[in-house]
Amino acid sequence: MIIVMKKDATKENVEQICSWLESHKVKASPIYGKEQTVIGLVGDTSDIDVDQVAMQQHVDKVMKVQEPYKKTNRKFHPDNSIIDVGGVKFGESHIPVIAGPCSVESEEQIIEIARSVKASGASLMRGGAFKPRTSPYSFQGLKAGALIYLGKAREATGLPVVSEITNISQIEMMEEYVDLIQVGARNMQNFELMKALGHVRKPILLKRGFSNTIEELLMSAEYIMSGGNEDIILCERGIRTFETSTRNTLDISAIPVLKKLTHLPVIVDPSHAGGRNDLVEPLAMASIAAGADGLIIEVHNDPAHALSDGPQSLTPEQFSDVMKKLDHLARAVGRSIIK
Amino acid sequence: MIIVMKKDATKENVEQICSWLESHKVKASPIYGKEQTVIGLVGDTSDIDVDQVAMQQHVDKVMKVQEPYKKTNRKFHPDNSIIDVGGVKFGESHIPVIAGPCSVESEEQIIEIARSVKASGASLMRGGAFKPRTSPYSFQGLKAGALIYLGKAREATGLPVVSEITNISQIEMMEEYVDLIQVGARNMQNFELMKALGHVRKPILLKRGFSNTIEELLMSAEYIMSGGNEDIILCERGIRTFETSTRNTLDISAIPVLKKLTHLPVIVDPSHAGGRNDLVEPLAMASIAAGADGLIIEVHNDPAHALSDGPQSLTPEQFSDVMKKLDHLARAVGRSIIK
Amino acid sequence: MIIVMKKDATKENVEQICSWLESHKVKASPIYGKEQTVIGLVGDTSDIDVDQVAMQQHVDKVMKVQEPYKKTNRKFHPDNSIIDVGGVKFGESHIPVIAGPCSVESEEQIIEIARSVKASGASLMRGGAFKPRTSPYSFQGLKAGALIYLGKAREATGLPVVSEITNISQIEMMEEYVDLIQVGARNMQNFELMKALGHVRKPILLKRGFSNTIEELLMSAEYIMSGGNEDIILCERGIRTFETSTRNTLDISAIPVLKKLTHLPVIVDPSHAGGRNDLVEPLAMASIAAGADGLIIEVHNDPAHALSDGPQSLTPEQFSDVMKKLDHLARAVGRSIIK
Amino acid sequence: MIIVMKKDATKENVEQICSWLESHKVKASPIYGKEQTVIGLVGDTSDIDVDQVAMQQHVDKVMKVQEPYKKTNRKFHPDNSIIDVGGVKFGESHIPVIAGPCSVESEEQIIEIARSVKASGASLMRGGAFKPRTSPYSFQGLKAGALIYLGKAREATGLPVVSEITNISQIEMMEEYVDLIQVGARNMQNFELMKALGHVRKPILLKRGFSNTIEELLMSAEYIMSGGNEDIILCERGIRTFETSTRNTLDISAIPVLKKLTHLPVIVDPSHAGGRNDLVEPLAMASIAAGADGLIIEVHNDPAHALSDGPQSLTPEQFSDVMKKLDHLARAVGRSIIK
Repeated sequence: MIIVMKKDATKENVEQICSWLESHKVKASPIYGKEQTVIGLVGDTSDIDVDQVAMQQHVDKVMKVQEPYKKTNRKFHPDNSIIDVGGVKFGESHIPVIAGPCSVESEEQIIEIARSVKASGASLMRGGAFKPRTSPYSFQGLKAGALIYLGKAREATGLPVVSEITNISQIEMMEEYVDLIQVGARNMQNFELMKALGHVRKPILLKRGFSNTIEELLMSAEYIMSGGNEDIILCERGIRTFETSTRNTLDISAIPVLKKLTHLPVIVDPSHAGGRNDLVEPLAMASIAAGADGLIIEVHNDPAHALSDGPQSLTPEQFSDVMKKLDHLARAVGRSIIK
Repeated sequence: MIIVMKKDATKENVEQICSWLESHKVKASPIYGKEQTVIGLVGDTSDIDVDQVAMQQHVDKVMKVQEPYKKTNRKFHPDNSIIDVGGVKFGESHIPVIAGPCSVESEEQIIEIARSVKASGASLMRGGAFKPRTSPYSFQGLKAGALIYLGKAREATGLPVVSEITNISQIEMMEEYVDLIQVGARNMQNFELMKALGHVRKPILLKRGFSNTIEELLMSAEYIMSGGNEDIILCERGIRTFETSTRNTLDISAIPVLKKLTHLPVIVDPSHAGGRNDLVEPLAMASIAAGADGLIIEVHNDPAHALSDGPQSLTPEQFSDVMKKLDHLARAVGRSIIK
Repeated sequence: MIIVMKKDATKENVEQICSWLESHKVKASPIYGKEQTVIGLVGDTSDIDVDQVAMQQHVDKVMKVQEPYKKTNRKFHPDNSIIDVGGVKFGESHIPVIAGPCSVESEEQIIEIARSVKASGASLMRGGAFKPRTSPYSFQGLKAGALIYLGKAREATGLPVVSEITNISQIEMMEEYVDLIQVGARNMQNFELMKALGHVRKPILLKRGFSNTIEELLMSAEYIMSGGNEDIILCERGIRTFETSTRNTLDISAIPVLKKLTHLPVIVDPSHAGGRNDLVEPLAMASIAAGADGLIIEVHNDPAHALSDGPQSLTPEQFSDVMKKLDHLARAVGRSIIK
Repeated sequence: MIIVMKKDATKENVEQICSWLESHKVKASPIYGKEQTVIGLVGDTSDIDVDQVAMQQHVDKVMKVQEPYKKTNRKFHPDNSIIDVGGVKFGESHIPVIAGPCSVESEEQIIEIARSVKASGASLMRGGAFKPRTSPYSFQGLKAGALIYLGKAREATGLPVVSEITNISQIEMMEEYVDLIQVGARNMQNFELMKALGHVRKPILLKRGFSNTIEELLMSAEYIMSGGNEDIILCERGIRTFETSTRNTLDISAIPVLKKLTHLPVIVDPSHAGGRNDLVEPLAMASIAAGADGLIIEVHNDPAHALSDGPQSLTPEQFSDVMKKLDHLARAVGRSIIK
């Protein structure tokens, strides 16, 4: 941590701050300049509250040197974490694809789609049970019933299943029926939920909030890890910008940036990022080329009558075609999509 | 709703869509153009899913004409709603100010600050019990204990109290101890919470998410109102932009824009918007001048040792000074701050 | 400047960097920490290129302590600069208002509007001659002819005139006909133009680019000042964000932030910020309350037939009404609008 | 164009607007609804000013149906445009790479880099002569001298050369020395420059402004094309968002979106997008996978001593390595990088 003193701070002022800091067990080294004095802090500064230091008299500003996250930080855990979801591994050279409809609509639908995406090479099945919708007048999901149907689809195909949690009260159900618990973008900073998921014994798929920084994403993962659950998969799904031709702007750089900062696997959701089914293929291709460890893609047997997210869903035929192209591309970079 | 057909849509294609639409009980009027055909829908289109229409073959795009919110819409409720919080009214010419610390730190602290802000003219008291913090290693609030202290501060001063809810499980406690339940920016799209608050019998202070549009804010209010709770106060608290000299960018235009779209009162949080105590006064002044119906301001008796948000808190002396200036300004526009 | 060394940097590496830095005539003070070493630089670091330092081996990152702007910096020029535009002063307690149409459309039009806005209390006249339009098919302005009409309007009313420059080749004409040369938002980082305006002997109205930070605005002013022209008025006119209910988002905080960082006067353009005539009054009121030193407002005698920007223009009657309210508000904060 | 009337508009009001519109030679078809009336306009509405219509009494809002750009629109020009730059073709299956330093620093430097990037498979050479720098105190480029050195590098290697124009007065020099004239992000809406480039007989590399929408990029290309110069290559180079871990956010979706909207080739600048040399490879890979028609990459023989943009430059060795990987990837999608 670096503390920049105000221009008019006297030597006495500087010494006062230094002894106050040293009472917090860090070493404070002042560098007296002609125009301004700065104080360098070495040692473990994680217990020092930046805000409190910034409020001290004669302090102009405080600059952090170290990242605020620890358990998610690659510096302290150089090797990739491999996350096992019902036998499917994220973080290795094989790139698992999660596929399925936005919402589970019926038992038949979900089993039919599960069979079809499995045939195309998907490694996991997705399906929304509890739907966070902007409008109270939109379809809100089949809830618990959907989880039961997902269980049936797993039974029928052997694919592990993924579904989104929207409230702490659903944790027990999720632990029973689901292999990977998804936290949606709007709940990434629902810290009560993060704390609760720290005590869960299932892996978590943590989606980046559409207006959250990469550092904030890692801090939310830190919440879960500091609670004891270290099985986290991060997911980039587009951020909110001024551009309106796509629903969100896929932050493709987030993949290599995250891979450098953290040991956790990073996957991409090209369906929500673009919000248009014609963009799923190019965005998925780009994600693989940029180093993504997985993909989550919306597939619906009848997009024109889907109860949600029809415009961004692929048909099973389109999905099959995209999977072949993705696998071909992945092999060109020494990885694979279809086993 | 306006449906724009693709360039190559035939007359037959258009007629097919029209009859499909009319089976949904709306009247579809096609306008055949040289280059493109558009279909105008009149009647109540609120049951028609834009996404489903957009997915139909030969449809290029769909444009909405009506706002998606109803109960919050001023068109159907032209008069201002007056929200009563423990006897203090929001939406009239008097402009109530909510003041207090970011976090409740002790019984003595909160009673001392309550007395002091009351003396300066504040109409309500704020204090955080459950703190949503970006880092799991930061102070998380005194929780239930803080609510009890807030109750004591109310007893001592008569000021109604405001505190933030971060989880559905806190509703019962909130109903017991608090006069106005605050939803923080990060929970504005926690739709499960919105639904639950629809059944609560206390007024709600709904803060705009830092990356949510004005329409999304109104949709979240719609969730609460459609559940039966119509006592909502909206709060602008700054949005996330590329500018880094302030924590957020106060969207001052949101005040007049919201006042035009909705009948609900609109207040402003200048402390979180700027994130700097030197900006509280100019942003509060600007908010009054732009038509705000209230303010929520952080005041701490010892900002340099505050457990959270010190840098944006005013001291009681600074607060007293700001209140006088605000009252003077408010009177110049026919309103008042201090009763 | 603070240099953070990489974790694995040896003492020798640090010493090497330090001697390289001292060859650039700054004093380098290393602080050796357990985990990381930082080097503090004191003295004049303005000749040191941050990028070059950041590229040196063993350097992790570089953090600036000082602002990169000097002539515009209030630290070196504590008093407000008062800018005189044809006798009208910006930066004093009187708040001049610049008013007029987006585009000059005819001699009669501009003289009529000039007379009317003068009668309402405007201190200067605006009118576009060269119009930067997004579409090549839109009206591009009357060009040189418009400047001549502006000259006539000045003759008729005595009001100094303001017009926008869009190319270096117009400088000579501007110097002849205009009292205040406006740089539009899209040209704020047209650095060739900035350099050329450094040699001009007329004051410059520098508008903030809709996606430029406050620091970038000050750096563009620095270009002009470093060329020798120190008469600059800064203008906040809204920034581009994700919110679509207004054309831009007025960054109201920019007023107090700029007033703290620089000695130059700061005015606001509420017409372009909101892009809607119903927002001009509340945004202008807010700007005065936040400390603005001036306003620039679009007024058109027949907005419904304006050749550009009709939807954000006030009629002369609306303008007269707004001016009275602004003056009343200004007087409540110890300033004035109408002389 | 669709016109939405205000709720209280009478049948007479609607008829009045319709006859006013028909006097502008478009056909106006009103659809009378229970709550609101909309008017559909068919025929060529390009001469009708949206703003003027929106200003008419009783009009609530106006919605555009057609894109405002014509010459750049793929609807009217379905085949890809192939742009020839000194014999190198953009828009075919071969993907040309432009490489070279941010700034030309000396004749020796530029010839050495030219030879080295040619050996690695680059098809064109870049080098800045006129540098738009945020600070007036930064290196501003060697100017005309640099163009002469670029000419020498072309002579020595046969590579066509690319350099950025920052002012209309440089056009003549550019036409003499350069094969492809680059418009930088900050000048994308310098409309006077766009108009002037419409009369130039050299192809233009038009970079997207860091805060400009895709539609605005196409409108700027429209300016150049409507002036008569149809040889334009578009370049995505990152947009400004709230994320700070990268200099800009590469909008990878812009590639497929632009390819759908326009027939012009689209290339990507991964060096400026990320602002970090470790991101050049993953972003370049992603761009090829998403369908880019070219790349422009910064290469410097001694990045640690570069006069500008060192941190984002590759060394010739790194560049050679990246080119091999890119070529391998390109071949997996049926294209090629190295001839």
